[in-house]
Amino acid sequence: MLIIRSVCELKKELSNLKGEIGFVPTMGALHNGHISLIEKSKTQNDYTVVSVFVNPTQFLPNEDFDKYPKNESNDIKICKNLEVDILFMPDKNEIYLENEPKILAPKNLANILEGAVRPGHFDGVCMILNKFFNLIKPKRAYFGKKDAQQIAVVENLVKTFFMNIEIIPCEIIREADGLALSSRNSYLDEEQKLYALKLSRSLLKAQNLINQGQVDTQMIKSEMKTILEPLKIDYIAFTNKNFQEISKIEINNTIILVAAVVGTTRLIDNIWI
Amino acid sequence: MLIIRSVCELKKELSNLKGEIGFVPTMGALHNGHISLIEKSKTQNDYTVVSVFVNPTQFLPNEDFDKYPKNESNDIKICKNLEVDILFMPDKNEIYLENEPKILAPKNLANILEGAVRPGHFDGVCMILNKFFNLIKPKRAYFGKKDAQQIAVVENLVKTFFMNIEIIPCEIIREADGLALSSRNSYLDEEQKLYALKLSRSLLKAQNLINQGQVDTQMIKSEMKTILEPLKIDYIAFTNKNFQEISKIEINNTIILVAAVVGTTRLIDNIWI
Repeated sequence: MLIIRSVCELKKELSNLKGEIGFVPTMGALHNGHISLIEKSKTQNDYTVVSVFVNPTQFLPNEDFDKYPKNESNDIKICKNLEVDILFMPDKNEIYLENEPKILAPKNLANILEGAVRPGHFDGVCMILNKFFNLIKPKRAYFGKKDAQQIAVVENLVKTFFMNIEIIPCEIIREADGLALSSRNSYLDEEQKLYALKLSRSLLKAQNLINQGQVDTQMIKSEMKTILEPLKIDYIAFTNKNFQEISKIEINNTIILVAAVVGTTRLIDNIWI
Repeated sequence: MLIIRSVCELKKELSNLKGEIGFVPTMGALHNGHISLIEKSKTQNDYTVVSVFVNPTQFLPNEDFDKYPKNESNDIKICKNLEVDILFMPDKNEIYLENEPKILAPKNLANILEGAVRPGHFDGVCMILNKFFNLIKPKRAYFGKKDAQQIAVVENLVKTFFMNIEIIPCEIIREADGLALSSRNSYLDEEQKLYALKLSRSLLKAQNLINQGQVDTQMIKSEMKTILEPLKIDYIAFTNKNFQEISKIEINNTIILVAAVVGTTRLIDNIWI
């Protein structure tokens, strides 16, 4: 496995590859969720490139950019074990220049849910992925469904920018108790981890209600709220796969999303119905 | 020559080409300036693709988008004669979708000179070229030096977006009397054409003063103003090739730019010292 830190070296090495590239963009602190993306890429492509880059432009000024979990030696070990071909770990000065264009995510996606709570977040996601996609020229790129809205933003980016890249959404990986894996789970102490389970449990409750024939989103939302108490709820939302709000569940075309704060840690989770 | 109007067909035809592509983006109403770009591309590439697309996003609401000169049959004839490989003439609905990211040109370039007078213009230039570059994947792209600031914006775009495209600036083509060719010259009547000559004459005067050893830009500017009277001058500017303002002429690293209004037509011109 090549560990590459400069854009110049990455270009040189990529020019030697003849075949399809699968790309897994990450912010490091790799866990089983990331591992499942890398494993999927390995099965579908000739080469797999993983990036580890805590992208400053997708953090708001008051967010956790400085304390975002880092574990470089473990990330390297995981990628080596998975036989990743290239691990790209650039410094931010390799990626961003002083004067450059800014990309604004499309308003219909950027101003709702995560975008409403984190204004500018998806602009930063578009900026970094546009750069990485141009640089790495993957055939396929792998994203976890946990960041469901991010997938919609990235699919829009690739389509409207005329990039020839297939976006592969991958299933959420959970702990045995249901907690969706996230690098930010490391902020939680043992007691908070129990409270964090309320997110996946509220979604499981929603799934059960739907299995029993419930289609009214207000009814489901109210049951979810009861489970989520006493957490601060950012949103409980019901959308179709185009991220338009819906008031009735449509089987095979519904995402239920929840965002809530446990202690000082903001967590998100969702299920696809 | 293939005349292609849909993105889907363009992708299909491009996938058959094996070799380097030269790309000449235009807004149509082709003149000898465009022809010189196409001829240069023909000598340097295996294939030449020309686009004719009056890009709505680079026009301000009060500008001449609706009346911008069009001459499709002549554009086709010119491209055929020059043995262009693909002439891409899409409708705007092929290119822009309802919801998509917006690109903002970098502030240091977008807020000065043309950008100051035409706020948002360079954002639209970045948006369309980003799309065309991704779609056509040229090895080289050709731009006239007449839009000098546009070249700086495009070079920045390609560099910071990690696009592997060489931007080729090409010399300004002029009428025998010195008038820089522009599709917008067609807005001028015979009397206005005489007034329009003041732009190139003011630049010729600047060149002569510099040849005589003058390096003070204020002195040169005042002589240029005298020639440009009674036109409404938008700006007379002296920059280095990075588009930073300078107060002393630097040989081989100076651009003198002028923008002025003749009748209701805004014209620009420049020389590279």
